[in-house]
Amino acid sequence: MKLSILFGGASFEHEISIVSAITVKAKLDNFELSFIFCDQDHTFYLIEASNMKANFFSSGKYKKSKSLTLTLGSFTNSSLFSSTTIDSTVLNLIHGGDGEDGSIASLLDFYKINYIGPRKEAAMFSFNKHYTKLYASSFGVKTLSHEFLTITDKRDVKTSYPFIVKPTTLGSSIGVSIVKEESELNYALDVAFEFDNTVIIEPFINNVKEYNLAGFKANGKINYSIVEEPQKNEFLDFDKKYLDFSRSQQVSEAELSTEMIEKLQDTFSKIYNTTFEGSLIRCDFFIIENEIYLNEINPIPGSMANYLFSDFKISLTTLFNSLPTKSYPSVSYQYINSISSAKGK
Amino acid sequence: MKLSILFGGASFEHEISIVSAITVKAKLDNFELSFIFCDQDHTFYLIEASNMKANFFSSGKYKKSKSLTLTLGSFTNSSLFSSTTIDSTVLNLIHGGDGEDGSIASLLDFYKINYIGPRKEAAMFSFNKHYTKLYASSFGVKTLSHEFLTITDKRDVKTSYPFIVKPTTLGSSIGVSIVKEESELNYALDVAFEFDNTVIIEPFINNVKEYNLAGFKANGKINYSIVEEPQKNEFLDFDKKYLDFSRSQQVSEAELSTEMIEKLQDTFSKIYNTTFEGSLIRCDFFIIENEIYLNEINPIPGSMANYLFSDFKISLTTLFNSLPTKSYPSVSYQYINSISSAKGK
Repeated sequence: MKLSILFGGASFEHEISIVSAITVKAKLDNFELSFIFCDQDHTFYLIEASNMKANFFSSGKYKKSKSLTLTLGSFTNSSLFSSTTIDSTVLNLIHGGDGEDGSIASLLDFYKINYIGPRKEAAMFSFNKHYTKLYASSFGVKTLSHEFLTITDKRDVKTSYPFIVKPTTLGSSIGVSIVKEESELNYALDVAFEFDNTVIIEPFINNVKEYNLAGFKANGKINYSIVEEPQKNEFLDFDKKYLDFSRSQQVSEAELSTEMIEKLQDTFSKIYNTTFEGSLIRCDFFIIENEIYLNEINPIPGSMANYLFSDFKISLTTLFNSLPTKSYPSVSYQYINSISSAKGK
Repeated sequence: MKLSILFGGASFEHEISIVSAITVKAKLDNFELSFIFCDQDHTFYLIEASNMKANFFSSGKYKKSKSLTLTLGSFTNSSLFSSTTIDSTVLNLIHGGDGEDGSIASLLDFYKINYIGPRKEAAMFSFNKHYTKLYASSFGVKTLSHEFLTITDKRDVKTSYPFIVKPTTLGSSIGVSIVKEESELNYALDVAFEFDNTVIIEPFINNVKEYNLAGFKANGKINYSIVEEPQKNEFLDFDKKYLDFSRSQQVSEAELSTEMIEKLQDTFSKIYNTTFEGSLIRCDFFIIENEIYLNEINPIPGSMANYLFSDFKISLTTLFNSLPTKSYPSVSYQYINSISSAKGK
């Protein structure tokens, strides 16, 4: 089984993706792995396994690796005398922009390369927190109430303090602040607008119970991970989340009733639906007064949430063997031909 | 001003796109035009202006043209002794799949090529009729009520007869049927499911008043076309719509009060929002008992709806000069560097 891990990307989560790829590499020794790095200029490089170390990238040494071009069915390196073709299934491990916003999905679909990862619609709904809420509510899944503000809007917030300000489209808590009183508002908005032109504002609920559940669909059935109650400060800050991306030790299950776990799984399946087929996702939920709220969908979770699965290797192999492929219709020239023949041409 | 018209695509609307490109070519003689054809295998070709005739494509003769590859900033043809670079702004004129589903937008953004056309989020919301309704309702714009059915669902329709069955993701009336009684239902669903795995079902309203309005945002302000009341049979069938794609004669304005036209423009602006920046779109509305309903959003209307603008050349030039560009964040290696230095490496 050949699998190429695609990582990097021109995003704020570039480094995280490198850490994630190094972690997953160690977990998938049952695959014949290749490593494809996307640098900040959107050039692809084929990375030798022995070079899969963080400072190979931070030092810029990767630039001496073979560059790759997207061609139909494969990533290819062609020079005058030789050509290398990487035509294996791709594991999209580019977190944040590029990977999680639907761009990489569109590219891989267009060039007819199989991949593990969210399809473009799935990426769009999970990447944008405003759209996630729309999507969830259309399936009857609750999310926290929110306000939506663009960079040019008047900073007239109606939500009561304390609240959380989040850039609409970033993950990993980048640009997120808790605002406890009015004097902190402008600074928090300035920070968030550094990263995005729009923000969402949600009520901040102290000590809210958070639960993470990962899963994927294979052969029509969803395979669930265990449910974890992540350790946290007020909220997961960037450094803490960073560590999350290099996690590889299995965690213990949250203390919840079987009934509540089934309710979480049921909510997960409503979100996963057909939209997320082909991907292993992690949903982060809140439980407030026994009600489940979707917080966010991670369609490419850090290190593929390997630590939530008792059998990560088997899980990924199962998904690998059950990937959807995009089909394209045959083009016909029926109309043009009928017109041409009517014209006697 | 250099502009490349990109057309074709692997979709049911491939032919329509060719017709549309030929029509628009005649309308934009103020630009220095290039023509890039995407064939059904997703190979790009540079087409000479003199070859912009329908049967050049239907006959397969286009395959002798220079092929092009997407590279950073341009479409390129490189052979051993020469190389051709097309680095002008692109007019995305691929109707239906590829062009209107966000794929081409993702490719052009990824390769940092400027373009006129919907960005990927805009494309995804307009391509899928179910998502269009979600999107519209989030801005308080009405659409007809609907049922959503997947190919594996029980064919248990609750909408009263007559109703319309539509594939969720296709344009140009492909696979659409009016169902007047139960005996016609299965056939209509079979037809629609030929084209898509999901369908929507909407009440059919006889003699509903339909109005089309096109527009685009430039320098923060929306420029509107006139409002047209399209001529139609029961609904626009494929052949009729086909002709629509080659329209080039300006039409006359619908007979509506100034107040109603302003209401249509206001509804258009809610839909256009910031989501559709960079594109010239046509919204098709119904007016039922003085209330406006959005029927569909065409983010790449046939022949760019040139016939709705009194000054199409000037309109397109204005849009050309006001295109958004996607910016990518600089990648930093702050975290990896801090860890490496802590380790004393």
